Amino acid sequence: MKLKQIKSRELSLRIKFILLFTITISGVVNAQLDAKSLTPKDTVLKSPDILQDNRVTFRIFAPKANDVSVNMDGFDKNIQLVRDNIGIWTGTTDPLKDDIYEYTFIVDGAKVLDPNNAQATRSGKKYQSFVVVPGEESNLYVYNDIQHGTLSKRWYDSPLLGMKRRVCVYTPADYEHNSKKYPVLYLLHGGMEDEDAWITRGRVCQIMDNLIAQGKIKPMIVVMTNDNANQSASQNDITPLSSEGGIKGFFNNAGKYTNTYVKEVIPFIEMNYRTYNNKENRAIAGLSMGGINVQTITNNNPDVFNYIGVFSIGIVSIGMTPEMIEKSKQERDEKIEVLKKHGYKLYWIGCGKDDMTYGTVRFLKKTLDKHDFKYLYHESSGGHTWNNWRRYFTIFTPMLFK
Amino acid sequence: MKLKQIKSRELSLRIKFILLFTITISGVVNAQLDAKSLTPKDTVLKSPDILQDNRVTFRIFAPKANDVSVNMDGFDKNIQLVRDNIGIWTGTTDPLKDDIYEYTFIVDGAKVLDPNNAQATRSGKKYQSFVVVPGEESNLYVYNDIQHGTLSKRWYDSPLLGMKRRVCVYTPADYEHNSKKYPVLYLLHGGMEDEDAWITRGRVCQIMDNLIAQGKIKPMIVVMTNDNANQSASQNDITPLSSEGGIKGFFNNAGKYTNTYVKEVIPFIEMNYRTYNNKENRAIAGLSMGGINVQTITNNNPDVFNYIGVFSIGIVSIGMTPEMIEKSKQERDEKIEVLKKHGYKLYWIGCGKDDMTYGTVRFLKKTLDKHDFKYLYHESSGGHTWNNWRRYFTIFTPMLFK
Repeated sequence: MKLKQIKSRELSLRIKFILLFTITISGVVNAQLDAKSLTPKDTVLKSPDILQDNRVTFRIFAPKANDVSVNMDGFDKNIQLVRDNIGIWTGTTDPLKDDIYEYTFIVDGAKVLDPNNAQATRSGKKYQSFVVVPGEESNLYVYNDIQHGTLSKRWYDSPLLGMKRRVCVYTPADYEHNSKKYPVLYLLHGGMEDEDAWITRGRVCQIMDNLIAQGKIKPMIVVMTNDNANQSASQNDITPLSSEGGIKGFFNNAGKYTNTYVKEVIPFIEMNYRTYNNKENRAIAGLSMGGINVQTITNNNPDVFNYIGVFSIGIVSIGMTPEMIEKSKQERDEKIEVLKKHGYKLYWIGCGKDDMTYGTVRFLKKTLDKHDFKYLYHESSGGHTWNNWRRYFTIFTPMLFK
Repeated sequence: MKLKQIKSRELSLRIKFILLFTITISGVVNAQLDAKSLTPKDTVLKSPDILQDNRVTFRIFAPKANDVSVNMDGFDKNIQLVRDNIGIWTGTTDPLKDDIYEYTFIVDGAKVLDPNNAQATRSGKKYQSFVVVPGEESNLYVYNDIQHGTLSKRWYDSPLLGMKRRVCVYTPADYEHNSKKYPVLYLLHGGMEDEDAWITRGRVCQIMDNLIAQGKIKPMIVVMTNDNANQSASQNDITPLSSEGGIKGFFNNAGKYTNTYVKEVIPFIEMNYRTYNNKENRAIAGLSMGGINVQTITNNNPDVFNYIGVFSIGIVSIGMTPEMIEKSKQERDEKIEVLKKHGYKLYWIGCGKDDMTYGTVRFLKKTLDKHDFKYLYHESSGGHTWNNWRRYFTIFTPMLFK
């Protein structure tokens, strides 16, 4: 087995296109001819296909498969597809609210990206195709013909973690064209994810561009960190570790990593970007595991952030012994009092009614209430999904730095 | 069907990890217990598994599948996998040279990313898992513990194409820490690809970091454009067009787009980065479709680039009428004479022995020979593959700006 002369797909397709184009301009197009010559690999189907009433039809050519369905992220039931006589499987959703929907085909049990859809998200190991059902809200999630900010992937030194680490930084479109200073929002991802999560699944660049253009938020820098203490960057780019993001990342987060946020991440950003270096101009938010980290970081550093967002998580004690629970409760009570005394402009909590973390959020609210600690609580429909986190982001950011 | 309370995979896995961790530290680990509770979704297999002799074993859990193989990018034959009694399919390659290998599982005809491998490339619509077989050459393709440059995704205005367009820019690690000027290498992708191709499949950031750290190349800025005239950015991020990258992109490239390179791309880069704005400090290279564009751009602009790289393509006349061929031949002959007269430091052509474009490269060489136009020709093994283009990049860049 060796590398050989391949009719590379790119090239053979291009030549096919050229020939097709030549036929087209010669006026002798025969659609039948083209359809006949298609191989499974090249079959072009309209998928996803958004219908007038915002139902979405999915199609895949899989003549050898016995069973094909569509798994939509955050939905309780797969959509069963039906095979036609040449092997095209088709299925349609109910009418959908305008939003981004991530999905994969399940072909005989295997997860398959939609081969006819260029659009996919990645976070951690998880790849999914996605479809944008158009409307006012989902229009915030796509690139419109307005000015766009820059996304940079930079590296900083972390002596505390003993490695160089990558961070994603969004700077607004006007950043390059003036010498102004900017406030900064720090964003933390969920478990099993990485510094790309808020970009690919969260659509932060598109949302920021749109909300800035609409005048709904103050132009700000957005910093997206990798919050797995044992990863220097997304495993997609670095050599994978034998022990991956999950367990070590999570447990280190509770201690070693969260310390580095104020000692290493913020100094790096403030030294390398034109930022206001004060509490009034710093915000932090995180989802799920990131929301636990946000609580840890802000409880431990009451003078650093004026705006705090905790998305879809509250106080988690799972896996702790009764002694650990009691000790962490005492520490938390003290720290919440200190944070309250130091003051903050906004403490925002968001959670879906059907989120499995709902109970942890209720516990957080109860704890804060006990201390008469002010917060804004937003309860949405839905569960532990990026559909909610994108939406929370669009609700949270307009309240910052005003 | 509605968004519901999901036991999100991230969260349920995390909780599983926490419990597992708790069990582990309690010293009552029972590996059997964990294996039994695995669902198909969660099954963790070692895949890819690099063996001592650089053979690679692939594994996937697909109990419902009838037929599973592995397709390796650039290989002529798929590897047939064999099923065990619980539904794990396994297969092993021959010993492999150190390199990056892109692959997908083919499960009952459908292309499936390796669910146990976080590492995948994307270019255009094409997603593939990849494995790095370690060695001296492939060590250039991975992040080592050295200083890393920054990757920025920026947008520039293109009045000529009537849209804003995204460009990827690599700046070396020392760029932020001095006020020096830098030379610039412009890189063009192949057909059906986009501005991310050289990053994800070409591993430009890793290669640049490594070659700079080894002192083998001059620190330089690398600019990676989207060369499909009808796309503002990768279709992964923008709303997909009804007519996609392929045909329109290719045909516009031959005219409208290549003009914008010197009129719009270069001025944007030179206004926004610390660059030497002269021919001596500009290089350009492209592969396949990008190599055609490089010839067009440099033939039309003999005073702009001192270093020119044409990878895996030569003179292409497919789809042209005899009159078009004759006309383009005359124009080319004139332009080559002009380019020769204006001078250049390096004209580098690379091609694989087994590349289907080999004949077009022979035609280019013959044409240049006829004009006594000096060039360096590198003939490698292999075909029209990113394995070759990464390698050409590591051969070409050390010759620049010296």
